[in-house]
Amino acid sequence: MSGRAVVLLSGGLDSATVLALARREGLECHALSLDYGQRHHAELDAARAVAGSLGAVEHRIMRLDMGGFAGSALTDASVAVPETPSQGIPVTYVPARNTIMLSLALGWAEVLDADSIHIGVNALDYSGYPDCRPAFVQAFQSLADVATKRAVDGHPIRIAAPLIDLTKAQIVRLGMDLGVDYGLTVSCYQASVSGLACGRCDSCRLRRQGFEQAGLADPTRYSP
Amino acid sequence: MSGRAVVLLSGGLDSATVLALARREGLECHALSLDYGQRHHAELDAARAVAGSLGAVEHRIMRLDMGGFAGSALTDASVAVPETPSQGIPVTYVPARNTIMLSLALGWAEVLDADSIHIGVNALDYSGYPDCRPAFVQAFQSLADVATKRAVDGHPIRIAAPLIDLTKAQIVRLGMDLGVDYGLTVSCYQASVSGLACGRCDSCRLRRQGFEQAGLADPTRYSP
Repeated sequence: MSGRAVVLLSGGLDSATVLALARREGLECHALSLDYGQRHHAELDAARAVAGSLGAVEHRIMRLDMGGFAGSALTDASVAVPETPSQGIPVTYVPARNTIMLSLALGWAEVLDADSIHIGVNALDYSGYPDCRPAFVQAFQSLADVATKRAVDGHPIRIAAPLIDLTKAQIVRLGMDLGVDYGLTVSCYQASVSGLACGRCDSCRLRRQGFEQAGLADPTRYSP
Repeated sequence: MSGRAVVLLSGGLDSATVLALARREGLECHALSLDYGQRHHAELDAARAVAGSLGAVEHRIMRLDMGGFAGSALTDASVAVPETPSQGIPVTYVPARNTIMLSLALGWAEVLDADSIHIGVNALDYSGYPDCRPAFVQAFQSLADVATKRAVDGHPIRIAAPLIDLTKAQIVRLGMDLGVDYGLTVSCYQASVSGLACGRCDSCRLRRQGFEQAGLADPTRYSP
């Protein structure tokens, strides 16, 4: 398989694995990150490093002024990042984030004449966000099937979510096989400016468990 | 009916009519415009004037750096706006524009705890864009039904497209009945800085026909 792909790259563990998978399929990968005013800018630095190390042909950071989108611990400094697992949808949920990111990717994919969009959503070891479920991915595919000029021309853009039913341990093992340097990635919801992880938030907890359950050394750089 | 709504406001004739309709329904309207680097900034000035005149409780302009999204005559100064009707999807199509705008509206609606999003797409007298068709609106509704925290909680956000099957003449008549001042709106794809319309592009042509067929005076300010 070959072709052109847009890969959503957050700088975290999952999306790095997705990029490595797409590269193994021989795809020409155009990486896209969104700067939506996230508190942890280290994420975008990590995305840049990951794109370079895995051979994306380009990496674009799109800036979106979401000043009005308060209400998430990931964008609003007045909301604390929780350090214990929560019930239901947690305060780190950014409203419609994956919908917005896939929409921007859809526009870019159409301009690039790309065949597919790759996203690292995962329905097992995740934080309970509504836009990480298979039903969400399927609904976005149905939307892409009617929303674009390519779709009207009979070539809809495929939404690929290759990690959707993998555990974090399976993702880590897969990525290690593909040569992903997870030391470059940042998953922490409150990473330091230089990308050191807190080791306590929900995202750190899931990531740490992944390495433990995979029986692999955790290359994450934690705050002392 | 009452409640809270996000209304997508482009500054053109259709979205102004949609805002007036939502206001007549007694909705508390939060108007949203997107500054995606469109050539005709007069559109955003018009949106501001329309939001004020029709009683939106607020008007927000979200800035999105779509530098990579070249390829449309509406964002790329090197592509000429055509002045004769085209076959198929015209060069004024902005890739995935309505998908992106509805996604941003969805995020904001969730933050506001709004019940509905209102968009002025219209499948009859339109320019042939894929994201102005009923199938597109239905697909976005299906996405909204799974994508958000509100949906998970059993209160999905409704996508309202009240103009979808109206002719331009019907839209104009409806808006006049509702007291819309169409002199404030700008539809032209290549309006001047002060909002004067060219009178020749596809959008001007459809708009002019609308007033003619409605038998109403056209308040559009055309370039001399």
